[in-house]
Amino acid sequence: MTQPELRPNERIDQLYSQDIQIIQSPEVFAFSLDAVLLADFAKLPARAKSQTVDLCAGNGAVGLFMSHQTKGRIAEVELQPRLADMARRSVALNNLADQMTVYQGDLADVNQWIPKDSVDVVTCNPPYFADLPDSQKNPNQYLAIARHEITTTLATVVTTTSGLLKMNGKAYFVHRPDRLLELLTLMDQHRLAPKRVRLVYPKPGKEANMVLVEAIKDGKPGGLRFMAPLTVYDDQGEYQPEVGRLLYG
Amino acid sequence: MTQPELRPNERIDQLYSQDIQIIQSPEVFAFSLDAVLLADFAKLPARAKSQTVDLCAGNGAVGLFMSHQTKGRIAEVELQPRLADMARRSVALNNLADQMTVYQGDLADVNQWIPKDSVDVVTCNPPYFADLPDSQKNPNQYLAIARHEITTTLATVVTTTSGLLKMNGKAYFVHRPDRLLELLTLMDQHRLAPKRVRLVYPKPGKEANMVLVEAIKDGKPGGLRFMAPLTVYDDQGEYQPEVGRLLYG
Repeated sequence: MTQPELRPNERIDQLYSQDIQIIQSPEVFAFSLDAVLLADFAKLPARAKSQTVDLCAGNGAVGLFMSHQTKGRIAEVELQPRLADMARRSVALNNLADQMTVYQGDLADVNQWIPKDSVDVVTCNPPYFADLPDSQKNPNQYLAIARHEITTTLATVVTTTSGLLKMNGKAYFVHRPDRLLELLTLMDQHRLAPKRVRLVYPKPGKEANMVLVEAIKDGKPGGLRFMAPLTVYDDQGEYQPEVGRLLYG
Repeated sequence: MTQPELRPNERIDQLYSQDIQIIQSPEVFAFSLDAVLLADFAKLPARAKSQTVDLCAGNGAVGLFMSHQTKGRIAEVELQPRLADMARRSVALNNLADQMTVYQGDLADVNQWIPKDSVDVVTCNPPYFADLPDSQKNPNQYLAIARHEITTTLATVVTTTSGLLKMNGKAYFVHRPDRLLELLTLMDQHRLAPKRVRLVYPKPGKEANMVLVEAIKDGKPGGLRFMAPLTVYDDQGEYQPEVGRLLYG
């Protein structure tokens, strides 16, 4: 394993279930359960000639966590240079430079690197909040851009996703339940037929706080399925078995 | 309790949790769990001056099961004379004729009985299937009309619901998950803001087979919540406690 070069306040965390190490910084970006669940929900073709793209890649967590699924290529697209730099160093740290490429730039310009209609799978953990951040709450610009639709919008992310995908290519998104109807409607308007939804609940008896969506480009409309719910914690505050396996193997 | 007049092949079933008796016939119409869950999901104003309308009322199950929630009036609207007749006799059987009225006719003509913009709550357990029935599978016309969109459509049901409701009145629907996106979109287009969704799963690890939706007329758009999932059976095939309470008290 390549010796990593860490910048101040960075640390190396591990996803034990995947034996992946990832450079993080609480001041800049650290992956959360959303990334782990999205990487598991997405199903990548195993073949070496496949191409997967992760948009809004942050420090590269989703792509790194999916890398064991495929021999194909994975591209990470991240706007913020500081985060893209962390992602590149994590790719090197895990000796995945032959499989993974990190592109730093606006996802709206993604076709400068990756042609339209060429991609098998697009994943995305976009900024969740449509409103601008309260400067009191988010003095940190790195986190504000990752969490709020300051530099992109859900409509742009969905349009970009649809443009990248081949016919029958698959899109996987994680988002907040209160944006689900908007996400499904945008997909429907941009040649992405939503096929599977999985709601994620923090613990028994609570309302959902996350949702995973699978859509197929140019898929037949209708037939949306809501898969078995995923509950993160049990009543004692311990991870439920499925989540424990995703985190610790 | 009034002595009921039963027709051939009719029987009296009981919802023990509500102490409600209901005239059923397996050849014509018998309520299922959908009706019990909808009647529980709907929240009726308790006051005597309130008006609730149940569309696609069948044998009146949903209205009968909600009657304990309110001192207000409940109207049942059912197209099929045979089913409306069963509903009327069940209303009499439970001594609820002062509170409940059964209207037999097309829901599209509901304003001949109930004025527009006058209703506090509309509930509906509509026909689930958009396709026409396979005559091999559904030689029974009563059941075919109750289950398939032969005499009405989801668009008509949603438009009628919106027309009946006062501003801030609430609509409660039960449907199949594969129609959820269509239902939410139709609501959105007809002044009904979806606010709460609850998915119903047959047992642990299975995908949802029912969904409950609450919408508010002229409500603020956005803010859709997905409430804690409801699972009907446990791994041993026994009712989960919440469902057992709804059925048996």
